[in-house]
Amino acid sequence: MKPMRTELDCLVCLYRQALNTARLATDSEELQRRILSEAAALLPRLDPSLSPPENSIRLYRLIARLSENPDPYAKLKKTGNEHALRLRDRAQKSISAAHDPLYTAILFAIAGNIIDHGALHDFDLDETINECLRRTPAIDDYTQLKEDLKGAENILYLGDNCGEIVFDGLLIELLPGTVTLALKEKPIINDALPADARLCGLDKICRIISNGTDCPGTPLNLCSGEFKAAMAKADLIISKGQGNFETLSHLKSGPPLYFLLTTKCPIVAQRAREMAGAAAEIVSGDTLLMRAGF
Amino acid sequence: MKPMRTELDCLVCLYRQALNTARLATDSEELQRRILSEAAALLPRLDPSLSPPENSIRLYRLIARLSENPDPYAKLKKTGNEHALRLRDRAQKSISAAHDPLYTAILFAIAGNIIDHGALHDFDLDETINECLRRTPAIDDYTQLKEDLKGAENILYLGDNCGEIVFDGLLIELLPGTVTLALKEKPIINDALPADARLCGLDKICRIISNGTDCPGTPLNLCSGEFKAAMAKADLIISKGQGNFETLSHLKSGPPLYFLLTTKCPIVAQRAREMAGAAAEIVSGDTLLMRAGF
Repeated sequence: MKPMRTELDCLVCLYRQALNTARLATDSEELQRRILSEAAALLPRLDPSLSPPENSIRLYRLIARLSENPDPYAKLKKTGNEHALRLRDRAQKSISAAHDPLYTAILFAIAGNIIDHGALHDFDLDETINECLRRTPAIDDYTQLKEDLKGAENILYLGDNCGEIVFDGLLIELLPGTVTLALKEKPIINDALPADARLCGLDKICRIISNGTDCPGTPLNLCSGEFKAAMAKADLIISKGQGNFETLSHLKSGPPLYFLLTTKCPIVAQRAREMAGAAAEIVSGDTLLMRAGF
Repeated sequence: MKPMRTELDCLVCLYRQALNTARLATDSEELQRRILSEAAALLPRLDPSLSPPENSIRLYRLIARLSENPDPYAKLKKTGNEHALRLRDRAQKSISAAHDPLYTAILFAIAGNIIDHGALHDFDLDETINECLRRTPAIDDYTQLKEDLKGAENILYLGDNCGEIVFDGLLIELLPGTVTLALKEKPIINDALPADARLCGLDKICRIISNGTDCPGTPLNLCSGEFKAAMAKADLIISKGQGNFETLSHLKSGPPLYFLLTTKCPIVAQRAREMAGAAAEIVSGDTLLMRAGF
């Protein structure tokens, strides 16, 4: 399987992301328009052979520079963390009471990155919990994961977004051995940084590092020595979210690698279909618990 | 009310349209990528003070030139017409049997531009008919329209898309006086040309002209003398679809002007809210039968 490329659809998506981010970065419509113009000039210069998360680094740096706002998603990240923390106790109770707590924790961790920030009432919180549990993965390699977890001493856990990391914490508590949670080094979209993980109390249950990048994924050639060392030491890797999937789905060797994600676009759904084999039916919006094919 | 502008969201939409159209215009992914690059270079040069349909002229001409395909939507237009023709008899029966045939014909004409090309079985045809009749307009100035139609001798009917024109024909048959149907001069997206109207038999029930443009709307400063003469002579205008609305919603005088459309984006829904007054709740996807506010 070749590394994922930046397809034409990805360019359209990046341009849309540029507008969304420009609006968060500044209230000036004039500056928003300038950001969109510069983004349009950047798009043809992106390298199609790189994955979308790798190309997006340049786009988000451009927006940060033009808006003089290094972290446009700061407020959304804060409310994302807060909202997830409000859900944590209910989710934990639901996990403890489940027939298979590990599997239930995985369902929460997968659903975590689509949890809506808007739910403010108790009724909605319960509804959100129920929705997480309803979403059963379209590909489900849980049996294999449980087998591979036996005797795993060093687990590398690649985190994704703010908010979501709270549910990652509930899963990490149930994992064997020592867990290292790798997050991003600098602000990129709503991805969690080590500071977010500490804010959510994850420093009490695992080791927290960054992957050394401001990429919304894990581009190995850009990652820090510390991250690479953690990867070399790992005897199992759990990769959360679409960005990590896009940058790692082509790996051909290494310790057992499991992708836990909600697919959010047709390109990623198509990639997952290719990985899973012709018979798999996966559409955008499906959740996956999928072992890399090596 | 000022003329509609090309908002930042419209730029993102135009870029997405560029990809959709590039894929229809050529099978070469290399050429599709080049089209997207040139489209990205064009976007910052568009005039924000022009409406999206006016700006889109340059985009679609660019795609036609680069792909050497002057009519990328030719096949879709053909199947759109054919599909609508298969629905015509059922729609006509439904109109004849209705308590108020004119109103029912209007519902079909409004729903016409979202009729899916995919329905191939009788069951789906009936389902499509029922769906058209279920969609009651969020703004409904029918009572005023009926009043304004009394004594109207010259009605100018601004058409929109292929397929849809078949249902326009069913409505035109019920209108009083002489009807002039104005379509586009040259191919633009899936907009109907005079040849499409003749193919669908509309030349038997009304006079068919073009507005002289390759704009997916009615930009008066670009329209032909023939069209302007028809407009000057009209004592009532019916404007179909979003493109005509975007280019005419700012008009401040003239004969009674009625917009019949399905709103397809938040920007147009917002404009309709502004026109209808603060109390109106209109969201993208709503249908409108709306008199211009003069």
